[in-house]
Amino acid sequence: MHGYTDDKDAYLKRLRRIEGQVRGIARMIEDDKYCIDVLTQVSAATKALEAVALGLLDEHLKHCVTEAVAEGGAVADRKVAEASAAIARLVRS
Amino acid sequence: MHGYTDDKDAYLKRLRRIEGQVRGIARMIEDDKYCIDVLTQVSAATKALEAVALGLLDEHLKHCVTEAVAEGGAVADRKVAEASAAIARLVRS
Amino acid sequence: MHGYTDDKDAYLKRLRRIEGQVRGIARMIEDDKYCIDVLTQVSAATKALEAVALGLLDEHLKHCVTEAVAEGGAVADRKVAEASAAIARLVRS
Amino acid sequence: MHGYTDDKDAYLKRLRRIEGQVRGIARMIEDDKYCIDVLTQVSAATKALEAVALGLLDEHLKHCVTEAVAEGGAVADRKVAEASAAIARLVRS
Repeated sequence: MHGYTDDKDAYLKRLRRIEGQVRGIARMIEDDKYCIDVLTQVSAATKALEAVALGLLDEHLKHCVTEAVAEGGAVADRKVAEASAAIARLVRS
Repeated sequence: MHGYTDDKDAYLKRLRRIEGQVRGIARMIEDDKYCIDVLTQVSAATKALEAVALGLLDEHLKHCVTEAVAEGGAVADRKVAEASAAIARLVRS
Repeated sequence: MHGYTDDKDAYLKRLRRIEGQVRGIARMIEDDKYCIDVLTQVSAATKALEAVALGLLDEHLKHCVTEAVAEGGAVADRKVAEASAAIARLVRS
Repeated sequence: MHGYTDDKDAYLKRLRRIEGQVRGIARMIEDDKYCIDVLTQVSAATKALEAVALGLLDEHLKHCVTEAVAEGGAVADRKVAEASAAIARLVRS
């Protein structure tokens, strides 16, 4: 059971839409669409992915990290360190 | 003919791979994989999209903007303004 | 007492350096330095600020959020929600 | 003469303000302000720096790159390549 488990269907729906956005970008390139219009769609897909990541992170903090912290000890320290590393990757991507 | 036209196949290959990455993220969620591992893949897909955008932008500057600037006048101004707006969207996504 | 309190001097030192970087960028503009060189310094100062933010966030999770979660209840929920909102601002800045 | 030369005073004013924001962040840390409030100010200073960078880039494209492209040849290619590299640094910072 993870933080996102209750929202699984919503995440799968969002990811299917992002998959469709990426396919749409490929079609635009196949159809020789104007670069700026393609770039606009790439920025939109990037934002959609970012929103999925922020949602997953929020739920990870609320569930997995919170449960581990309630237990305390080394498990808690590791979970917090993992979350911080994931945040850094997200900020730098 | 756009900046990316000569590299069309390379872009289509990269986009198919990103599409696969997004499908892979969905599968991880279906399979209840650990949040941090899912987040790592989302950051990877975001970076891959970002690299596609930077490539498209570079080629847009090299071809479309350069051609328009060589022509001069209002067309050039508009192309540069469009490029700047696309850069801002990319920086803020 | 906050997460960063033990590292106060280190943060103040880093912030003084960033202040110096921003002053340096201003001097470059006063001295009509080449745009690309100025931009390189702006990216460097932005990265330095980002690193300060990631450090503060890590320590906030380790101390403030962890302490609140150990207490449990509404305080914990609010601290986690605050942290998530701060992460989102950081990702989008 | 660079793209930003005409707006020098405006840039210097903005940079002084950012310098003040960074000093303000240091003061918040000295005064043991709450981590989340400090993070909010760091995100604000980061966004302000980003806006300076986008302005400089826009003017660089409008002036330096456009002038070089009008000249044509190797100078133009180098200016466009430089601009693309600066954009990539900005996107990844």
